[in-house]
Amino acid sequence: MNATQLKTLIARLAAGEIEATEAEQQLLRALRARPFEDLGFARVDHHRSVRQGFPEVVLGLGKTPEQIAAIAAEIVSRGSTLLITRATDAAFDAVRGVAPGATYYADARIIALPQADIAPGNGVLLVIAAGTADLPVAEEAARTAQLMGNDVSRLYDVGVAGLHRLLVEQGRLDTARVIIVVAGMEGALPSVVSGLVSVPVIAVPTSVGYGASFGGIAALLGMLNSCASGVAVVNIDNGFGAANIASLINHL
Amino acid sequence: MNATQLKTLIARLAAGEIEATEAEQQLLRALRARPFEDLGFARVDHHRSVRQGFPEVVLGLGKTPEQIAAIAAEIVSRGSTLLITRATDAAFDAVRGVAPGATYYADARIIALPQADIAPGNGVLLVIAAGTADLPVAEEAARTAQLMGNDVSRLYDVGVAGLHRLLVEQGRLDTARVIIVVAGMEGALPSVVSGLVSVPVIAVPTSVGYGASFGGIAALLGMLNSCASGVAVVNIDNGFGAANIASLINHL
Amino acid sequence: MNATQLKTLIARLAAGEIEATEAEQQLLRALRARPFEDLGFARVDHHRSVRQGFPEVVLGLGKTPEQIAAIAAEIVSRGSTLLITRATDAAFDAVRGVAPGATYYADARIIALPQADIAPGNGVLLVIAAGTADLPVAEEAARTAQLMGNDVSRLYDVGVAGLHRLLVEQGRLDTARVIIVVAGMEGALPSVVSGLVSVPVIAVPTSVGYGASFGGIAALLGMLNSCASGVAVVNIDNGFGAANIASLINHL
Amino acid sequence: MNATQLKTLIARLAAGEIEATEAEQQLLRALRARPFEDLGFARVDHHRSVRQGFPEVVLGLGKTPEQIAAIAAEIVSRGSTLLITRATDAAFDAVRGVAPGATYYADARIIALPQADIAPGNGVLLVIAAGTADLPVAEEAARTAQLMGNDVSRLYDVGVAGLHRLLVEQGRLDTARVIIVVAGMEGALPSVVSGLVSVPVIAVPTSVGYGASFGGIAALLGMLNSCASGVAVVNIDNGFGAANIASLINHL
Amino acid sequence: MNATQLKTLIARLAAGEIEATEAEQQLLRALRARPFEDLGFARVDHHRSVRQGFPEVVLGLGKTPEQIAAIAAEIVSRGSTLLITRATDAAFDAVRGVAPGATYYADARIIALPQADIAPGNGVLLVIAAGTADLPVAEEAARTAQLMGNDVSRLYDVGVAGLHRLLVEQGRLDTARVIIVVAGMEGALPSVVSGLVSVPVIAVPTSVGYGASFGGIAALLGMLNSCASGVAVVNIDNGFGAANIASLINHL
Amino acid sequence: MNATQLKTLIARLAAGEIEATEAEQQLLRALRARPFEDLGFARVDHHRSVRQGFPEVVLGLGKTPEQIAAIAAEIVSRGSTLLITRATDAAFDAVRGVAPGATYYADARIIALPQADIAPGNGVLLVIAAGTADLPVAEEAARTAQLMGNDVSRLYDVGVAGLHRLLVEQGRLDTARVIIVVAGMEGALPSVVSGLVSVPVIAVPTSVGYGASFGGIAALLGMLNSCASGVAVVNIDNGFGAANIASLINHL
Amino acid sequence: MNATQLKTLIARLAAGEIEATEAEQQLLRALRARPFEDLGFARVDHHRSVRQGFPEVVLGLGKTPEQIAAIAAEIVSRGSTLLITRATDAAFDAVRGVAPGATYYADARIIALPQADIAPGNGVLLVIAAGTADLPVAEEAARTAQLMGNDVSRLYDVGVAGLHRLLVEQGRLDTARVIIVVAGMEGALPSVVSGLVSVPVIAVPTSVGYGASFGGIAALLGMLNSCASGVAVVNIDNGFGAANIASLINHL
Amino acid sequence: MNATQLKTLIARLAAGEIEATEAEQQLLRALRARPFEDLGFARVDHHRSVRQGFPEVVLGLGKTPEQIAAIAAEIVSRGSTLLITRATDAAFDAVRGVAPGATYYADARIIALPQADIAPGNGVLLVIAAGTADLPVAEEAARTAQLMGNDVSRLYDVGVAGLHRLLVEQGRLDTARVIIVVAGMEGALPSVVSGLVSVPVIAVPTSVGYGASFGGIAALLGMLNSCASGVAVVNIDNGFGAANIASLINHL
Repeated sequence: MNATQLKTLIARLAAGEIEATEAEQQLLRALRARPFEDLGFARVDHHRSVRQGFPEVVLGLGKTPEQIAAIAAEIVSRGSTLLITRATDAAFDAVRGVAPGATYYADARIIALPQADIAPGNGVLLVIAAGTADLPVAEEAARTAQLMGNDVSRLYDVGVAGLHRLLVEQGRLDTARVIIVVAGMEGALPSVVSGLVSVPVIAVPTSVGYGASFGGIAALLGMLNSCASGVAVVNIDNGFGAANIASLINHL
Repeated sequence: MNATQLKTLIARLAAGEIEATEAEQQLLRALRARPFEDLGFARVDHHRSVRQGFPEVVLGLGKTPEQIAAIAAEIVSRGSTLLITRATDAAFDAVRGVAPGATYYADARIIALPQADIAPGNGVLLVIAAGTADLPVAEEAARTAQLMGNDVSRLYDVGVAGLHRLLVEQGRLDTARVIIVVAGMEGALPSVVSGLVSVPVIAVPTSVGYGASFGGIAALLGMLNSCASGVAVVNIDNGFGAANIASLINHL
Repeated sequence: MNATQLKTLIARLAAGEIEATEAEQQLLRALRARPFEDLGFARVDHHRSVRQGFPEVVLGLGKTPEQIAAIAAEIVSRGSTLLITRATDAAFDAVRGVAPGATYYADARIIALPQADIAPGNGVLLVIAAGTADLPVAEEAARTAQLMGNDVSRLYDVGVAGLHRLLVEQGRLDTARVIIVVAGMEGALPSVVSGLVSVPVIAVPTSVGYGASFGGIAALLGMLNSCASGVAVVNIDNGFGAANIASLINHL
Repeated sequence: MNATQLKTLIARLAAGEIEATEAEQQLLRALRARPFEDLGFARVDHHRSVRQGFPEVVLGLGKTPEQIAAIAAEIVSRGSTLLITRATDAAFDAVRGVAPGATYYADARIIALPQADIAPGNGVLLVIAAGTADLPVAEEAARTAQLMGNDVSRLYDVGVAGLHRLLVEQGRLDTARVIIVVAGMEGALPSVVSGLVSVPVIAVPTSVGYGASFGGIAALLGMLNSCASGVAVVNIDNGFGAANIASLINHL
Repeated sequence: MNATQLKTLIARLAAGEIEATEAEQQLLRALRARPFEDLGFARVDHHRSVRQGFPEVVLGLGKTPEQIAAIAAEIVSRGSTLLITRATDAAFDAVRGVAPGATYYADARIIALPQADIAPGNGVLLVIAAGTADLPVAEEAARTAQLMGNDVSRLYDVGVAGLHRLLVEQGRLDTARVIIVVAGMEGALPSVVSGLVSVPVIAVPTSVGYGASFGGIAALLGMLNSCASGVAVVNIDNGFGAANIASLINHL
Repeated sequence: MNATQLKTLIARLAAGEIEATEAEQQLLRALRARPFEDLGFARVDHHRSVRQGFPEVVLGLGKTPEQIAAIAAEIVSRGSTLLITRATDAAFDAVRGVAPGATYYADARIIALPQADIAPGNGVLLVIAAGTADLPVAEEAARTAQLMGNDVSRLYDVGVAGLHRLLVEQGRLDTARVIIVVAGMEGALPSVVSGLVSVPVIAVPTSVGYGASFGGIAALLGMLNSCASGVAVVNIDNGFGAANIASLINHL
Repeated sequence: MNATQLKTLIARLAAGEIEATEAEQQLLRALRARPFEDLGFARVDHHRSVRQGFPEVVLGLGKTPEQIAAIAAEIVSRGSTLLITRATDAAFDAVRGVAPGATYYADARIIALPQADIAPGNGVLLVIAAGTADLPVAEEAARTAQLMGNDVSRLYDVGVAGLHRLLVEQGRLDTARVIIVVAGMEGALPSVVSGLVSVPVIAVPTSVGYGASFGGIAALLGMLNSCASGVAVVNIDNGFGAANIASLINHL
Repeated sequence: MNATQLKTLIARLAAGEIEATEAEQQLLRALRARPFEDLGFARVDHHRSVRQGFPEVVLGLGKTPEQIAAIAAEIVSRGSTLLITRATDAAFDAVRGVAPGATYYADARIIALPQADIAPGNGVLLVIAAGTADLPVAEEAARTAQLMGNDVSRLYDVGVAGLHRLLVEQGRLDTARVIIVVAGMEGALPSVVSGLVSVPVIAVPTSVGYGASFGGIAALLGMLNSCASGVAVVNIDNGFGAANIASLINHL
């Protein structure tokens, strides 16, 4: 029983739509249920939706398609929203067998099957990307945020080498309640954006670059040392993580 | 003219407390004012309060006491809240000369002189520290957050080696709207805390530790790689930065 | 002549099952034998079983299938237990030619052919893994420990982001005599586990993760800086090494 | 009530030395006591002795003498053994005020006040140091191990550049139940020692060296990559941590 | 004989101001002179002025005051401009003994005694600094550039967190022939400046910052990975080096 | 309207070749045009030619052939010179469809289609490479510089291990107005070259080497620490960036 | 004309085997010859044999088969010994076309075609390898040393985990005039070997290992920090470089 | 009995200067003597002189003056040459008490008291330093080499930025049998020197530099990646180690 299901049950009880004994039975079953399901190689955390407002998300990286499909089946069987990141074609083939309605967003490397258990966010969540090569990460963030119930807006290829491309968009910056900024190479964009707004900025360094970018270290360090306050950082290429905390903020 | 002063002016005008011509005069003067003051070695950003809701904060590190005092004088002269981080006794001696009412919070290394220009936050901002040695950074965060108008709660020395010290505080965790977690050494505490709550967690790695802690790198990497979602990270020992973004979130 | 063979010989002599002259002959042969066999590209250490209680283990990494098979043949010819780690399908094909009874545990990347020369451990050796992607390393540890004579128990996917999955298993934690904890990403699990038990914890960082996990450095540093005492660490992905020292401990 | 006190109580009850009601009262008081004491800046973990067989140890690094003394007073007030590592003269001055019987072992940087709550270890715990400059760390390990109830033996300045100094001590190596090897520079000694024995080796890299030793990184990496199995590693200069896990092993 | 002296000699000969035999004598002496003077601990390169247009500059770092003074004496004895970087009060005391007219620019850590041998640059050399703490490095650059004959302009504390402080100075940016940008922390300013101009930008990372700035590595990497073209980088805190190449460019 | 087109228009107007009203119309259209074109995944910066004297260059790395072709089409449609670096065969296939006249310089990994909008440089731009393996980067630099209007000279395989190969070319060194030095391994060549000339040297470290070259870090650090002044550095393998700043210098 | 050819010419002249005029002609031709041949992409250094006693060696890494073959042809045309390291099958196919007599030593990745221009070394050059996986590097060293005229002896798989395998070979150690020690993982073997001999030891770290071996960094640091004196180190996997300096030593 | 004493004994016996019984007695005493003396904190290796031709050298770093003096007393008592590196004034004060004839070479940080047990080297050992700041390390090398019996020549401040200072010394380069090259910053000098000679070059990186020299890492990497063969490297600032191996080479 996830948070939405609990809410519905109580509402119906209060509205007299169901009997007290029926409600009692359902709640007892839920309390008796294990808070996770042990598949041997994985313990699917069914409690997470109650605890954190969104069901357990599956990180596809390092799992076999068979493992991913088994976890997906377990999640779907509980009526929870399915969200798999770092997915591949092979994973999608396996997941389709157990969750026929699932969609694969290849540009975001995401497999998803939304349910009615997601609460809407409060404002616009803006995703900004510095360059075209940052799009896979930006899309992971944007798509995740949408699946988590947020109204998402995108602003791509506005790197600091051509500032006017960003400055003309001050209007869109001002409408956002929380902003994710995705950038590789020197990772300067979050500092600049943060100086232009008064809302929290979640910075995502990407591994875009070569040579002394060292797989995203340059961008990561740039963001951690931002002279602009109001910026916090997630792992290199972690579009999902950025969307997650941004969504928590947008649901406050 | 900062955001609070502007708000007050418009309210008084709407209430008929001042004349339209008087309001016009004041607004014209504000518009004509330079958005920053150039001291040669520093350009004090008087526009920041309008842009970001809090006046420019002075990072004491790397500035001479004389430079700090000159910048402080400029900020105080505009009627803005003064906040100096990474302050020293010498800096405080110099600042007192230009801002006699200022207070020095030695445990937080902060000099402050609050004004009436700060809006209150919406909920409890909880600051958690893993160990006693993390307190200077935790206090920088807590004190900054208080000065920025937040209702701050503290929970110290609850590192993961003795989990029961944290688990008994689930009640306090549940009351927070946003949480700052300060930890050195392996930096595991934000992951654990984030798994227990459904609000955003801002993680601050500290340079506490020795050997392979490498001045906070171990804690920083631990936090960036958190298996718990809902965590974003600021620079090593950056209590101020954590407070800043947490306060932005708490003011949404 | 390995340690078990020596023990048997002496027992049989004491029991009058063999003649003194026969025993003398066998011991003389053993003493005259070279403590290693020089294959040119490898010196197989036949003395190790006497010195350390387990025959030389073959690290498959960086050796050709032909070299592995030649070493395997030499070990098998002495009647010692064969254990090859970081094995591949190609290596198994080659080894089967010289050791037809050998088994390939693909999930652990181990080829083995046990003999009767292994002494049993004294208690339960528990292998804990933080996530599903850590399983290849965890299985290398668990399988090695089993082949070294230990009673092995497994507890997988109990990462710190969902602590309740671990806390419900306090009973199993309490039954272990020594614990191996395998974790990637931030590597926080050994600290948490060590805080819940009073037995030695051997921590294995894995290369699971991306971005700032830097191939396991984040997890390694997290474990080395554990605020919980009672933890020692082996190389990244070194499931074998963890099993080896844990088995030594369990045989004390 | 620590583990020893509990044991004593039950023994006396079984022996009829105290009344059942008296035992019940004492146990009830113990159960009602908080498992930790909150000093504001520190939460002293009084439960650790029950959980892990040794009271909470105080890491002096990063704490003020006043904080150390306050924690010490709390520990001593419960009748538990006091052990403070990385202590300084100033800390000792402060601690003496609250624990007059405490001793300061300057070569080990340890302050201690033992109580009768420590169980003896089962065998010899041997501490080996590669060079004279490694002695502060080796003594931290040796002194800690002694305070934890172990029979400690020392073997110093037997680095691999003059192997005969070590090889002549094979007899002492053979008597040890667990061995701590402390080495800086290239950190090769644990590999060599582990090849000569069949017991677990805990390796401690030290920051001894210069240039490309990088404050102990060279030794740390050398130990993590040991070609000898049976070695696990703790943090650079972490003599205490090595003693802790070695003592756990020796108490099995 | 430096380049200026040679030029003068030839001009005077062409103008009939000196005799051919006199010119021949002077040139012969110059050709016979050793191209460097060997002081044992230093070989002062008197040829550099001819080869590169500016006499050898003395890096004070790592030299004793006595060594610096001896080198200074040698340079002054040839009538060349004296320039010592990374100077200290002690060095100045020693140098004054051999070069009484020398000046110490403490904010730039430079000792200098200019001569008439320096050719003027062709345009404005603009030195920009991101923050007040960057001033020692910025002044080293600006002062060096002035001593090398350039018309130097300064623009300080225009970091990217408050872009308007920089954007209002577009006019000054447009007048520069070459620009040095000095920045610590995330080092983003050169990228932004380069996007606003069409002249070469020499970027100087500084060690200003803390935590993950790693003594200037973050700024260095940010600048090397600049998404704006037209930027080249010198060593961390190397204001002198930036001035040197910028001056070469400005003298083209 | 790029810089060349603007120049032509004004010249024609001044020469009476076009009517004032016609010029006005054209200028109005140019002013009304957006300074960039938003393709969704990319914002092509048409303003760059005016701002920086050369149109936006496309970095092929991390973009799909389709994205590259779409951007190329946009650039070509404005009559600007097309320059794509880090190009591949697949990218060229896609670009040919939209820019049939484009050329692929495989040894330089560059696709180009020059237009008449490029101003010529003022002197010889010399590209020096230390070894044969550095040629792809050297050619990227040389080809880019040629396309930017410079007179380019090449000098390859003159590494410091055989100095005479370089010293015999002093004559060619002396003719250069700016020099690019490309080197991997220890990256010592820029220091040596800079000591032989009096013009600016742009150093390009390459990832050529193995082992402790760490993908170009050794060469990068060598160049940043050059004891010769007059050297500035760009990113590892960044032949394009070196050519860009060298061309800016050569156009002064 | 290489060193051997010169020696022969002078000997024949002294012996009256050739005319003075003939010798003069040959020497004049040699003096007039360019000391290198410029192939455009490479400057083959024909002077190296005179300068350093061995012709230029071709590092195959990073060169195309065509480039390698062209350089080989140039070397062979001068009658010099051909030595190509880091060769591949494709390179060998190309080289055979221009140097039909060349041999490919696949285990050493070396192509060679010896000539009579190599002087013999003075003693035994011993190559020691720690493990089987180090053989490609050890063979590169051994084969190179043989081609440079040295009497080479091999001792493989004598890592420090089983010291007796090395100690039984003290006799062979004592016969060597110079020793190369090749080791990966912790790289401890050179320290141990150096403690057993009184001749110079050249240490070669290899990239053998995994996890925290970081591609050979652990072994490199171990060797640089050797507590045994008499050890110097070359680049990771640089068997050729070790052989080169060892051969120079052996030819003294 | 060191190597020289043994040689003398045998010579005298052969010359009939002593009786066979006397020689036998002396040899028996020597054989019975322990090969090291155990001082508790140090095991002085008296066997080293026999094994390696030079008595144990004391590394002063990390030892207290008292420890150094005790070791020195032990060495002197055996009639061996005393050599202490990284010495301080305090160490010298302590050593003078036990070895009154000892000398302190402050510029080389060496304390020494030579005896007649050192054999002379065979040729000139040349020590080259790139800059004045490298002198402490260069003098450590030069002084050590002299004490080890070598004819030492010095050539200082010949860095690659002014090549002519080195090239004019080709004559001195040609007279050396082995060369030590000491350099900080980019560490390019060994590559250049090695290209000019045909003898082994031992390279010593120094920590001289700032910023991206990272305490000598830049120089170390530069030397390890030398494109010139014939170079081997020792630890950063390890003048002693370079002298040791160079002396071994010069004694061959």
